[in-house]
Amino acid sequence: MPDKKLHWEDFEPGAVTVYGPRLVTREEIVAFAAEFDPQPMHLDEAAASATLLGGLGASGWHSCSLMMRMMADGFVLNSASMGAPGVDEVTWHKPLRPGTRIRLRATVLETRPSGSRPGVGLIKFRFEMLDEADAIMMTQVNTLMMGRRTPGGAA
Amino acid sequence: MPDKKLHWEDFEPGAVTVYGPRLVTREEIVAFAAEFDPQPMHLDEAAASATLLGGLGASGWHSCSLMMRMMADGFVLNSASMGAPGVDEVTWHKPLRPGTRIRLRATVLETRPSGSRPGVGLIKFRFEMLDEADAIMMTQVNTLMMGRRTPGGAA
Repeated sequence: MPDKKLHWEDFEPGAVTVYGPRLVTREEIVAFAAEFDPQPMHLDEAAASATLLGGLGASGWHSCSLMMRMMADGFVLNSASMGAPGVDEVTWHKPLRPGTRIRLRATVLETRPSGSRPGVGLIKFRFEMLDEADAIMMTQVNTLMMGRRTPGGAA
Repeated sequence: MPDKKLHWEDFEPGAVTVYGPRLVTREEIVAFAAEFDPQPMHLDEAAASATLLGGLGASGWHSCSLMMRMMADGFVLNSASMGAPGVDEVTWHKPLRPGTRIRLRATVLETRPSGSRPGVGLIKFRFEMLDEADAIMMTQVNTLMMGRRTPGGAA
């Protein structure tokens, strides 16, 4: 029986997929901030209005964590993903406000076999977090390690 | 009365500061993963032992979030920090295991005035998460925006 999970061979350069939406509440923004990033701009409307954010907005690390969850539910948990060695870049373009319905747009930038592990391929993605109006709130570029259906076979 | 908060002028290139320690428990690793990154390698020892992590380890985004909390408690909450536009790079070198006592080493790489905002300076840091044996578990390079004590003054 063939393995129905997504493997490295299933990701085509140029492919674009959109996941979500997910509603982000004030309650979860404040809860994350209280635990991991207790700066006033992430905790309290009045204090936040005096900051560069111009009002309450999620911690950038909360946005990253929400994106991870959307990736997991979107494809990672149904794939031969082996994790990631790191992140090439993260840019926060626009505050994530309470009540925003976010989506995740994933674009495959390139794929290549791992040089050192015959059973593994690398997939470089651009991930964009979008709001309801398709404005880009956050961009990430990162590379996932993914199991190959045909280890060591031609790319 | 002078403002006792840390300002841009207080960060000297080459300065190194170590924050922490903080004990990371299995309970918090699993709780974070269940909410944001429910991959088996972050949730369950048996499943994790079959993965590249070789045993239960924290989500990389949990490491980033813990680092943010150590930055906040270490200096950000006592500073004129105005947040960050993004992160230049994140590298996960070594799994974060339950029971590890982490520390955060912050190195000021460079400082410069903002080109567009006279009251703001930029501070580029390298942050390293260390374990008890001083092994580097995660590296981040990122740039914080920080209020200047003397807006528009000489750098």
